[in-house]
Amino acid sequence: MRRIFRSLVSIEEAKQKLEESLKIERKVEEVSLRSSYGRIIAEDVYAPIDIPPFDRAAMDGYAVRAEDTFGAEEDKPIRLKVVGRIEAGDKPEVEVNKGEAVEISTGAAMPKGSNAVVMVEYTSAENGDVLVFRPVAPGENVIAAGSDIMAGELLVRKDTRLTAREIGTLAAVGITSVKVYSKPVVAVISTGNELIDGGELEYGKIYDINSAMLCAAIEENGGKAVYLGIARDNEEEIRKMIEDGLKTADIVLTSGGTSTGIGDMIYRILDNLGEVLVHGVAVKPGKPTVIAIANNKPVFGLPGYPTSAFMIFEIFVAPLIRRMAGVSKEDSRLKAKLSSRVFSALGRREFLPVNIVKGEGYTAYPVTGNYSAAISKLGEADGFIEIPESRAFVEEGEEVEVKLFSTLKPADLIIIGSHCVGIDVLLELMRKGKPFTSKVINVGSSGGLAAIRRGEADIAGVHLLDAETGEYNAPYIKRYGLRGVVLVKGYMRDQGFIVARGNPKDIKGFDDLLRDDVTFINRNQGSGTRILLDMHLKKIAEQRGVKLEDVTAKIDGYTIEAKSHTAVAVAVLMGKADVGLGIRSVAERYGLDFIPVRGEEYDFVIRKERFEKDVVKRFLDTLRSEEFKKELEKRLPGIRAYEKTGEIIEFT
Amino acid sequence: MRRIFRSLVSIEEAKQKLEESLKIERKVEEVSLRSSYGRIIAEDVYAPIDIPPFDRAAMDGYAVRAEDTFGAEEDKPIRLKVVGRIEAGDKPEVEVNKGEAVEISTGAAMPKGSNAVVMVEYTSAENGDVLVFRPVAPGENVIAAGSDIMAGELLVRKDTRLTAREIGTLAAVGITSVKVYSKPVVAVISTGNELIDGGELEYGKIYDINSAMLCAAIEENGGKAVYLGIARDNEEEIRKMIEDGLKTADIVLTSGGTSTGIGDMIYRILDNLGEVLVHGVAVKPGKPTVIAIANNKPVFGLPGYPTSAFMIFEIFVAPLIRRMAGVSKEDSRLKAKLSSRVFSALGRREFLPVNIVKGEGYTAYPVTGNYSAAISKLGEADGFIEIPESRAFVEEGEEVEVKLFSTLKPADLIIIGSHCVGIDVLLELMRKGKPFTSKVINVGSSGGLAAIRRGEADIAGVHLLDAETGEYNAPYIKRYGLRGVVLVKGYMRDQGFIVARGNPKDIKGFDDLLRDDVTFINRNQGSGTRILLDMHLKKIAEQRGVKLEDVTAKIDGYTIEAKSHTAVAVAVLMGKADVGLGIRSVAERYGLDFIPVRGEEYDFVIRKERFEKDVVKRFLDTLRSEEFKKELEKRLPGIRAYEKTGEIIEFT
Repeated sequence: MRRIFRSLVSIEEAKQKLEESLKIERKVEEVSLRSSYGRIIAEDVYAPIDIPPFDRAAMDGYAVRAEDTFGAEEDKPIRLKVVGRIEAGDKPEVEVNKGEAVEISTGAAMPKGSNAVVMVEYTSAENGDVLVFRPVAPGENVIAAGSDIMAGELLVRKDTRLTAREIGTLAAVGITSVKVYSKPVVAVISTGNELIDGGELEYGKIYDINSAMLCAAIEENGGKAVYLGIARDNEEEIRKMIEDGLKTADIVLTSGGTSTGIGDMIYRILDNLGEVLVHGVAVKPGKPTVIAIANNKPVFGLPGYPTSAFMIFEIFVAPLIRRMAGVSKEDSRLKAKLSSRVFSALGRREFLPVNIVKGEGYTAYPVTGNYSAAISKLGEADGFIEIPESRAFVEEGEEVEVKLFSTLKPADLIIIGSHCVGIDVLLELMRKGKPFTSKVINVGSSGGLAAIRRGEADIAGVHLLDAETGEYNAPYIKRYGLRGVVLVKGYMRDQGFIVARGNPKDIKGFDDLLRDDVTFINRNQGSGTRILLDMHLKKIAEQRGVKLEDVTAKIDGYTIEAKSHTAVAVAVLMGKADVGLGIRSVAERYGLDFIPVRGEEYDFVIRKERFEKDVVKRFLDTLRSEEFKKELEKRLPGIRAYEKTGEIIEFT
Repeated sequence: MRRIFRSLVSIEEAKQKLEESLKIERKVEEVSLRSSYGRIIAEDVYAPIDIPPFDRAAMDGYAVRAEDTFGAEEDKPIRLKVVGRIEAGDKPEVEVNKGEAVEISTGAAMPKGSNAVVMVEYTSAENGDVLVFRPVAPGENVIAAGSDIMAGELLVRKDTRLTAREIGTLAAVGITSVKVYSKPVVAVISTGNELIDGGELEYGKIYDINSAMLCAAIEENGGKAVYLGIARDNEEEIRKMIEDGLKTADIVLTSGGTSTGIGDMIYRILDNLGEVLVHGVAVKPGKPTVIAIANNKPVFGLPGYPTSAFMIFEIFVAPLIRRMAGVSKEDSRLKAKLSSRVFSALGRREFLPVNIVKGEGYTAYPVTGNYSAAISKLGEADGFIEIPESRAFVEEGEEVEVKLFSTLKPADLIIIGSHCVGIDVLLELMRKGKPFTSKVINVGSSGGLAAIRRGEADIAGVHLLDAETGEYNAPYIKRYGLRGVVLVKGYMRDQGFIVARGNPKDIKGFDDLLRDDVTFINRNQGSGTRILLDMHLKKIAEQRGVKLEDVTAKIDGYTIEAKSHTAVAVAVLMGKADVGLGIRSVAERYGLDFIPVRGEEYDFVIRKERFEKDVVKRFLDTLRSEEFKKELEKRLPGIRAYEKTGEIIEFT
């Protein structure tokens, strides 16, 4: 395998090389005004005519010579001879002489000789005459020609995004088509033998993520995406597709095939077709990026991992599309405090996706784990932060600048805490009313309390068992020193062992987890379920006179953490584990067996001031409703509303 | 003419009546994932499979049993037998036993028996064996099945707007189509004999503004507009179009035909077709609004004046479209200080369009004049404020809440002050570079200085002649007490009389303006041109020993104010005035004659801290450029750069 030398360049160098080699042309096309909404206009438009083009009646009434009405009073009307009638749209043929009037409707052209309109309310028709009960001043109730727009005025300036109001202004002067910037056409190619585009999934294959995602991102930035398909890892096939792209598009994107093993293929192809400017960027994620120019068009070889591909798109491709589309860069950055310390590699820029939650200010929750390969991490995130080459870590609480993926639309309702399917049902019932957006971040019960303390969550769902008192939740609120919050009692959930149908491993209690022939799936630290487990394991350790670690070391799977009850059930269903701890309703949903351990109280912690929020009121109303109680019974055996549901305990 | 009784209702009553009579259904349709960008998803989507669906290699290298590599060192490699090779997309047939390895590429499925990948960098191939120079831990360089998404996880929640990232997440699990809310179809009908749709303008006719504007506004709020055409003021024709609309659309809008004279036609038609809920709303603008239900569909009879129609659309129709489309209401309000006192009628809610400019905070500039009929006022505005029924006026500086028409996109460059075509050329040259947005508000030189003081303008264009010293601009900065600003010398402009070709009225000087046979067109108060005029008129008054008012009263047209130089020239061109005061370049552009009065210095006032702004730097660079100088010479005779152009005078 030939190894091509690759010298990593910085983002700034890569951008500069691209800038030097590329002459950006903005193409222009003419579209009908009616289909121009949202487009960027490519010309200054001046008014060719006055608007209105003639003096118009502003009211229904009589066009008169104002001087004739002077002296009119309620009990001493002035009589004028009605010599005609003009409707809107008529070309006025009649003239108003001294002592005469013309009946006129709103919007009609004023007849010659007249200079004011008496409103119909202040007149009375009588035998072909009209009695006028109030005088009018010259110009009264008349919209003068050119008073709205004067011919020669600049109506819409080049580079403006056309909204309803600009379109109305252009329609007013009779314009029916406008020159707008063409949307740059971007061809999208995915590469990789492992990719398939929907359909049945063979072992070893995965669904293509990048093409659908990049097509949407191209549209988001003002471009037009053309999807060319999936190329196998075959030099001929990839070259052919890139050539097709160069024929029809302004920019060509490939993704995948850029890592060393298979790869360097994209490099060789682009080196043949044109000039490779960049082969490798000192950035995480996205190092194996290739940037080339062929046919005077930029070609980007993006990494195959979805988050890497998306980040490199955001850094290099999106600004280019926007420039070509004439879209002025929108300000979509905000300052936030980092929720926890993160580490980064020295000498390499890192773009770390974060989730934004608004509390006192904004808090950025960094995504964790191997995020470059994980589409779910990207899906959750609101934007990313940039960690410079010179930093080995960024401190918890440090202010960071977040570049948003799109305009931040803070969710109407933010629930942070322990995962519960009861919340899904509750949200579903709430959704029958006015639409709202919600964000549910599952970080376990303790994480929920921390988010409440920082004012980030409206509601935290918690089920924290106090090992000493045997009481749920309230002791933890005191222990955390939370003030100005209330505990809203939720519902009871049956916690227990989730096992395969028929309980083949014959699980009866916590001791069975230590058996060699039993594989366990655990929950994440800080979750209420995990605390329940560890409480029981501690008892076992005490009984056996060993350390807790000695007990946990015996449990096969203790270190494998699922993020939710559902994930636990699915692991058991698929035979990845024999048993997990979770709630009955989830076990039943997947047709699994359930061995109850104890009923636990799942409650909600809410900051008091959030009771003002409409959506929080709806949450409480729904929680207390008969409908919710019935839906739980019907759909979620093992979760049940009880006499305390909706009760409020204040912590001042 | 039958007069139909109409009792005005408040906005709240009208909304309540609509709410009670209407059952809103959100329709759902299935679209391909690739075309779902920006749509609102109508279902909760759970993951049907794990992602990745199998354990994958995260790196190029060798799949091994981690235990076999323990003890490997740089100078003491461990030798493994290579038993196969797996590329991404292959179904692995081979198994890894003790002492064996399989060559593997990034993304490929891990073969049975292996539990880690040794990166190719830490290996060396040798005669069908591989030497491993570093140990790996179990799971190292492996992306575990389900580690990204676990089957059963909620992927995208109902009512979410689909962006690139949600679409990527859905593509990951093989979803190729999604259920989204159908865009509610809204039929648009314009009514009025006076309306035409583009083409040549006969006297008495005007171009239809509302249909193009409303179609765009419908799209803006997530609906699909269907334009049905212009109906004449004819009951049959209008009824037929509304019936067509009711067949195909979810909502029907008409505009026009709602005032008393012609009107009540819409009322009668809707009374026949269904039930009229509201006939007249106590609101300005938009009083003659009709709201009805026919075929269980809402029909709105909007006023004919464009601003009135748009406001009523924003108040009643837009929220309805958004609800039907599942679009959650976006927060598009902001607090601003009112720039000047405005009066309003008691007993009637007023929706007053305003222009937002950002300074220390936001300032709302109310539009002035008869704005309901004027599309240009709406085009300029950023949003509107609501003045309650109980208020006769709102005070200057009072905090108001502005409802934005769309998300506020503050212009990159704000120029407030006197109008000059030289600025248009300058902006055009600047536009050759990176796109930017600009807002040019022409309020005259004094208005520009006030905007600089309040920090609202980046740049003010001024040409204020000090009558005492004969000096331009600098004396006014001192008089206004402006600090922390600089005066940037601009260019010279020839000011003089603009008259028809051949100067038919033989205008020689200011005395001629007082002649009975001469009609003048004036500039707005506060403009530099107006000051120049009044200075000369004052001299005439002194010479004649009369009051200034006696002189101005003699000038026919003294009270008619054009907003710009261009508007003055056009008025002369069209014979609406014989003479106006303005600059040479504008006279030449329109083929008019010009009688010079004096050269004036057109300068720019800039707040010092704004020099930091990239776009302000570009403004200065362009002002000082040779290119600008040449363009002025070529295109704008009478405007010329000179030795002082670009000079800076600081005022600290």
